[in-house]
Amino acid sequence: MIVPDLPARVDVAVVGAGLAGLAAAEHLRAAGASVVVVEARDRVGGRAWSEALGRGRFDRGGQWLGPGQDRLAALADRLGVATFATWSTGQKLLDDGERVRRYAGDVPTLGPLELLQLHLAIRRVDRLTARVPAADPLAAPRAAALDARTVADLARHLPRRVRGVLDVAVGAIFGVTPAELSLLWFLAYLRAGGGLMNLSTIAGGAQERRFVGGAQTLAERWVERLDAPVVTAAPVRRVRQRDGEVVVTSDRGAVAARAAVIAVPPPLAATIDLEPAAPARAQLVQRTAMGAIVKVVVAYERAFWRERGLSGEVVSTRGPLSVLFDNTSHDGRQPALVGFVQAGPARRWNGDAAPVVAQLVRWFGAEAAAPQDLAITDWCAEPWSRGCPVAVMPPGALTTAGTTLRQPVGRVHFAGTETATAWTGYLEGALESGERAAREVVRVL
Amino acid sequence: MIVPDLPARVDVAVVGAGLAGLAAAEHLRAAGASVVVVEARDRVGGRAWSEALGRGRFDRGGQWLGPGQDRLAALADRLGVATFATWSTGQKLLDDGERVRRYAGDVPTLGPLELLQLHLAIRRVDRLTARVPAADPLAAPRAAALDARTVADLARHLPRRVRGVLDVAVGAIFGVTPAELSLLWFLAYLRAGGGLMNLSTIAGGAQERRFVGGAQTLAERWVERLDAPVVTAAPVRRVRQRDGEVVVTSDRGAVAARAAVIAVPPPLAATIDLEPAAPARAQLVQRTAMGAIVKVVVAYERAFWRERGLSGEVVSTRGPLSVLFDNTSHDGRQPALVGFVQAGPARRWNGDAAPVVAQLVRWFGAEAAAPQDLAITDWCAEPWSRGCPVAVMPPGALTTAGTTLRQPVGRVHFAGTETATAWTGYLEGALESGERAAREVVRVL
Repeated sequence: MIVPDLPARVDVAVVGAGLAGLAAAEHLRAAGASVVVVEARDRVGGRAWSEALGRGRFDRGGQWLGPGQDRLAALADRLGVATFATWSTGQKLLDDGERVRRYAGDVPTLGPLELLQLHLAIRRVDRLTARVPAADPLAAPRAAALDARTVADLARHLPRRVRGVLDVAVGAIFGVTPAELSLLWFLAYLRAGGGLMNLSTIAGGAQERRFVGGAQTLAERWVERLDAPVVTAAPVRRVRQRDGEVVVTSDRGAVAARAAVIAVPPPLAATIDLEPAAPARAQLVQRTAMGAIVKVVVAYERAFWRERGLSGEVVSTRGPLSVLFDNTSHDGRQPALVGFVQAGPARRWNGDAAPVVAQLVRWFGAEAAAPQDLAITDWCAEPWSRGCPVAVMPPGALTTAGTTLRQPVGRVHFAGTETATAWTGYLEGALESGERAAREVVRVL
Repeated sequence: MIVPDLPARVDVAVVGAGLAGLAAAEHLRAAGASVVVVEARDRVGGRAWSEALGRGRFDRGGQWLGPGQDRLAALADRLGVATFATWSTGQKLLDDGERVRRYAGDVPTLGPLELLQLHLAIRRVDRLTARVPAADPLAAPRAAALDARTVADLARHLPRRVRGVLDVAVGAIFGVTPAELSLLWFLAYLRAGGGLMNLSTIAGGAQERRFVGGAQTLAERWVERLDAPVVTAAPVRRVRQRDGEVVVTSDRGAVAARAAVIAVPPPLAATIDLEPAAPARAQLVQRTAMGAIVKVVVAYERAFWRERGLSGEVVSTRGPLSVLFDNTSHDGRQPALVGFVQAGPARRWNGDAAPVVAQLVRWFGAEAAAPQDLAITDWCAEPWSRGCPVAVMPPGALTTAGTTLRQPVGRVHFAGTETATAWTGYLEGALESGERAAREVVRVL
């Protein structure tokens, strides 16, 4: 439950009330430890954040559930949060900046030679992915060489339009351009999520289902049932270890604990003053950076795209939106689309919705010109995320800054989807990471 | 002068008492503004930090002065800090992991073909460097393509030993591996410092002269003369802008100002809570990361290397030390060497000096086995630097996270050597950046 004040002393202080922190708290309570969860925002859920729009409740943040995300499915089930299939019936559109074409299947329409090269590129990525263990990318054959390259380098010899489609996929998954990613880190991430196509698709992939009431409902209901206090609007500034005690200091006071779990994205964890300092971790964490996403939900009176045989899915190599999906509410009462501005254009986002609406008109015709309502979430402007959907790693970090983001520092342990070894970057990974951190803590309490 | 308490109100609050902050403070005072300098450490000087060792005073941090660093030379002159030539007489050594060879000149002895390829590689870097404007790298021809590549990618086809020598040079200049650097950012940095060879050499280059009493003497004397209070041991946690006022909050209280200059390395600036948030800057700053350097000063009774016709300069492609220089005190009374552990090995540094001494014995014989004294500075373990010598940028950051580290945010301006357009990363750059930030502030006060 949410309480106004920090207790003076607990067994474990958990920093962050996203799904990772809540998972850690629940597992620690189940093991008999006393716990407090300390959250910077005035709400719980972290990157899961849902708000009312028109006749529905929509997600400003993470919103999908896919096959193989078993912890997430079980949690929804347990908390009584229903799920429903993401709409994917109908043809998709590819806007290559010149023309808008319809296509069916998982891969956009290109010329036959381009299509072949796209398939070959995907197969090549799949083959490389299979060689990289998600939990220990440095154990991959030729790990250092893979870590010295970027994903852009891998795509360098592909035709422009094929590269454009891959750029959109990388932007949608990571919120960055391919040049920003270590190839080794990228492959480990794909491996953790079942491969590139699995992460890019709706039916049978990571975008398969949605939550009735939005993904934040999970966090809200979880906190109600959690047998541990949660203190919100309490940014943690310092974590001090001395004589086997950990003191966690927030803007709403301090709590003494026997151990702590920091369950916030690595670039945010870097802003928490650890004492004593953790030099090796600091070098690695400095090398992580959040992707950039502006998420736009557009509500309409009617799902006119469906009426024209379109699924609502669009891949566009011209901005501001790079990808679009149908985002109608589970009961169909609020037709909607959801689009993403990614990487560079998201970092330069100026708040002007007009070019977004112009894209929708280009794709779906005049009916798209008058949305009922529009909700724009610029994740870079969220001070307690500083970007979305996930923190990425540039080349050279894994091999030289060593160890992993999961490595505890004394009695301070780390959770958060970036530390997960399965479904890194997804809600599922957040849950896995929280459980793993809780297990570590239970062993040393 | 150093004072115990922050004033309640000044015209400009300067965060950081390194050379950048002090330069800003002096120029602001000269323009008639009231100023306070707020410093996290219990000393001034930032990455300039000198301590007694044996019969001399040595630099744990930045220590060199080169031709073209006019602000730095003038400052030393004005503050009465004498300089002297770095010792470079005698032959140098190259340790390629198999053999130790002597060489003369600026480029290590390799086979004739390797030597040719090294020269060609340097010429290629020089040609590329000439195309990139230091102050505006995005204006370079094909900037995006250069930013999508790493320096490792540029060196990929070179023979192993040539690459080894370039790795050592990159490690010495940046504290990182070539894979960690955007080629575009790297070229802009070289351009700002007069080119690769200029940054790599002693006589005629960036390591030409040293300061009697160490580089920190500059900061110490400057603070004595500065007509503005300096408060140390006061880490700044928050900078809030509201109604044209800037409130700077440190662990030793807050000061209200009309403007602020943040003069700390970008990854440290990222730990200061800016309110309102600066999303575009936050995305860029997250993408910077400090290099890793462990600096080792070894004092001996006699400069035995000189007696054998050696300059003390060593390039080693095998660690822990990658480069070594003579570091004898200006008066010759304290013979010494200074070596650097770089990038990966610096990040994994475990404090054991034995392998370093073993290297010195390998290079100079048994006499090296018994140092008089030894001072090791692990810059990654310095909480108010988190690495050294400089914050670097990975591929894709400049082109997509846009603008520059110099861009003010409202009434908050940014200094620090990373924001310099001449001698970025050097003491000289720190001075330039402080002056530039002060000029910006004077225009808007």
